[in-house]
Amino acid sequence: CIATTEGALDELPHHQKLRAAGWGDRVLSTFRPDDVVDPDRSEFATNLAVLAALTNESTSRWSGYLNALRARRAFFRSMGATATDHGHPTARTADLSNSECQRLLDVCLRGTGSPLEKEMFRAQLLTEMAAMSIDDGLVMQLHAGSQRNHNAQLFARYGRDKGADIPAPTNYVHALHPLLNRYGNDPRLHIILFTLDEGAYSRELAPMAGHYPVLKLGPPWWFHDSVEGMLRFRRSTTETAGFYNTVGFNDDTRALLSIPARHDLARRIDSSYLAELVAGHRLDEDEAAELIVALSYSLAKQAYRLSGSSPRMSTLSPR
Amino acid sequence: CIATTEGALDELPHHQKLRAAGWGDRVLSTFRPDDVVDPDRSEFATNLAVLAALTNESTSRWSGYLNALRARRAFFRSMGATATDHGHPTARTADLSNSECQRLLDVCLRGTGSPLEKEMFRAQLLTEMAAMSIDDGLVMQLHAGSQRNHNAQLFARYGRDKGADIPAPTNYVHALHPLLNRYGNDPRLHIILFTLDEGAYSRELAPMAGHYPVLKLGPPWWFHDSVEGMLRFRRSTTETAGFYNTVGFNDDTRALLSIPARHDLARRIDSSYLAELVAGHRLDEDEAAELIVALSYSLAKQAYRLSGSSPRMSTLSPR
Amino acid sequence: CIATTEGALDELPHHQKLRAAGWGDRVLSTFRPDDVVDPDRSEFATNLAVLAALTNESTSRWSGYLNALRARRAFFRSMGATATDHGHPTARTADLSNSECQRLLDVCLRGTGSPLEKEMFRAQLLTEMAAMSIDDGLVMQLHAGSQRNHNAQLFARYGRDKGADIPAPTNYVHALHPLLNRYGNDPRLHIILFTLDEGAYSRELAPMAGHYPVLKLGPPWWFHDSVEGMLRFRRSTTETAGFYNTVGFNDDTRALLSIPARHDLARRIDSSYLAELVAGHRLDEDEAAELIVALSYSLAKQAYRLSGSSPRMSTLSPR
Repeated sequence: CIATTEGALDELPHHQKLRAAGWGDRVLSTFRPDDVVDPDRSEFATNLAVLAALTNESTSRWSGYLNALRARRAFFRSMGATATDHGHPTARTADLSNSECQRLLDVCLRGTGSPLEKEMFRAQLLTEMAAMSIDDGLVMQLHAGSQRNHNAQLFARYGRDKGADIPAPTNYVHALHPLLNRYGNDPRLHIILFTLDEGAYSRELAPMAGHYPVLKLGPPWWFHDSVEGMLRFRRSTTETAGFYNTVGFNDDTRALLSIPARHDLARRIDSSYLAELVAGHRLDEDEAAELIVALSYSLAKQAYRLSGSSPRMSTLSPR
Repeated sequence: CIATTEGALDELPHHQKLRAAGWGDRVLSTFRPDDVVDPDRSEFATNLAVLAALTNESTSRWSGYLNALRARRAFFRSMGATATDHGHPTARTADLSNSECQRLLDVCLRGTGSPLEKEMFRAQLLTEMAAMSIDDGLVMQLHAGSQRNHNAQLFARYGRDKGADIPAPTNYVHALHPLLNRYGNDPRLHIILFTLDEGAYSRELAPMAGHYPVLKLGPPWWFHDSVEGMLRFRRSTTETAGFYNTVGFNDDTRALLSIPARHDLARRIDSSYLAELVAGHRLDEDEAAELIVALSYSLAKQAYRLSGSSPRMSTLSPR
Repeated sequence: CIATTEGALDELPHHQKLRAAGWGDRVLSTFRPDDVVDPDRSEFATNLAVLAALTNESTSRWSGYLNALRARRAFFRSMGATATDHGHPTARTADLSNSECQRLLDVCLRGTGSPLEKEMFRAQLLTEMAAMSIDDGLVMQLHAGSQRNHNAQLFARYGRDKGADIPAPTNYVHALHPLLNRYGNDPRLHIILFTLDEGAYSRELAPMAGHYPVLKLGPPWWFHDSVEGMLRFRRSTTETAGFYNTVGFNDDTRALLSIPARHDLARRIDSSYLAELVAGHRLDEDEAAELIVALSYSLAKQAYRLSGSSPRMSTLSPR
């Protein structure tokens, strides 16, 4: 099963074809609305006009804008998507009044928003997306903390997404508070957190995933999707968050042919980590045997709500 | 020997009984004045009224308030306490004028203090506690960096201290500066630092404990009181701070029956770490044999000024 | 080959003697202009007057001040220096207008600069130094993130540089942005970054060194020039930055006789790390054999542009 990500305005023509050809369960889209929720993009206002036309909603009104987002989520769901993905510079969330939301939408549409106003707009949208996830069941993924397009000369010459993305220190305990205050304990909500700031693993992410029912930890992301990175992730999070608050392995490569090798590496590293626990008498061998099925297969299916044939879900039984 | 912590207003009736029954050397109280130094607690003003009544001091005057705190420390000491404990959201300290202290006390008592004013009030109190420690010999413990009661719904329904405490990034090098500028080199003062931010181990805490005579490092705290957490602590601090600027093991569990197991684990992990150093020829076996006595027994007795029969204190002799 | 560091006003009399005695290739100076670029030093204005006299430039004019710095760099180069070194409290850089630079120079000379103005002055100087490095070929080293003279009593009694320097959290991704926006892709520029904040290794420094042609990572510095520190450095940076974006080993000890032992330790730790990769089948043995020559010898010669007889430079050949 492979999941792509597409912007909110995408009509998913390729996925339409794949569905018609019977691949709908195997190749899924993911709703990634950065194009219509990030006022820092130069085409933000244009995109909202397209969004309005697509959905027949007034996207200059806060309520119409939210309706339009709901409509696009419903379209993606109808095409088989089970998740959303959000690539934000920080993990900041907000819980603002409707009038303040309308004001932020106004300044962002006019292009006069300050950096803080644009940040608060994105922050509020994360909370709105959580609310919509509770309604429509899409699993929410947050990829936060990348300073995008850091190389100004490269950006000026070649444009966005040319590899000059550098991680920045990322705070979760304060940033996610407004969202969690509203929805942190709702059993219908599932948020998967990714980080580029390994310092947050043991300090914030593992304690938060251990505490909040809605939170799970995604696998090591990007620079940390590596041998040492995967080991640091397990060693820093397992004792506090456990295995079952993680979601198995997924990568976000654009290199299609590398995917099997990446999964193979993840299985090897997780096996190696489990073997370490068994050798140190911190885990029994039969538990490790159950866990590796979960880490390499069933946790990902559960976390992303994938259906279809599956081996019996393994869980650690009380001994 | 077991130490409890009690608030500044506690009359210690159980400790009184234990002393009468001859357990006074084995079950100690610890002076934990968060109830009368944290203006963020809703009962702060009420508590200061109780403190005034208990001590016959005017706790609305800065000097009377400090006298009252001194009186309670003296009472705890008379009951056998050897240490204080301070659970602050940050490690911030301050060294303000008396008039500014009075002003902060006024606004905190009226409940009109801003977040910064309340933070500065707590910050000043840490410096005052250090001054009192120099006078009365109580060892000062600082547990900083927990974002308490993070889960708003849980807090609204069940109140304080229900497990929703998440670590936040914690700075020590700037935060402790005002206190250290006044008392950092005073041989009578002993401060034991605990952290939930492992990033501070090698960056700030080990260098500071290596430099300042008053500072020692407490064992891995809370989420980090674990196999991997203990190993990270030793690996990140030993080369800079050494073993003798740490204080052996203590946990802060409320689960009484887990205490022996926790100490057993700490001894095993420290033994394992020492064995690693011996196997790599970074330590000789006889040095490791001396060190494990210090790490599992004598350092804690020295650091917390516990008397009573003891095996000969081990120190590394020059070779 | 041993490199010292001298302030910008130094006439290098000892190096003159050493050159005359034929040691000029073996004992080099390094241009370390902290004395004339750090307005926090009480002797800053005096030093700029000396700089003016030495160079016959008006150091109270921004352009004259830059000319004077160029002249001193040229003198150091004429004496064999191949590098500069910059010890800044943060890694902040700036790219300000000439009029703003003149204004900052004015307030710093008058001693009326605010902490932010003095920070911005130092920040601008780093960018100017990068520009001069492009012209004169001196390799630029940045040692950032030390909170100097932290112990106020020690400083009051004994003055600067008495060991009370404590690391502080250090950001590079935002701090270096202004400099990198101008010069980050210039093949003539070589900047070597050192850090005391190990959290930055995998989060910022390795990704940045992997991306920007001008950046390389210096070896573990100061507190981290140790067994565990060196291992953490390799484990945290290699998978993202590789080996060839690091510069081999150098220490900055003042203990002359410890230098061979430090290099010996570095070779052992790097050998141990390579052996670990070979044992885990992540590297072949012949690659490790090539790499250890690079890590212990040739990378340092290349990075610091040292000439003289050398073994054939090793590079990993495509297999």
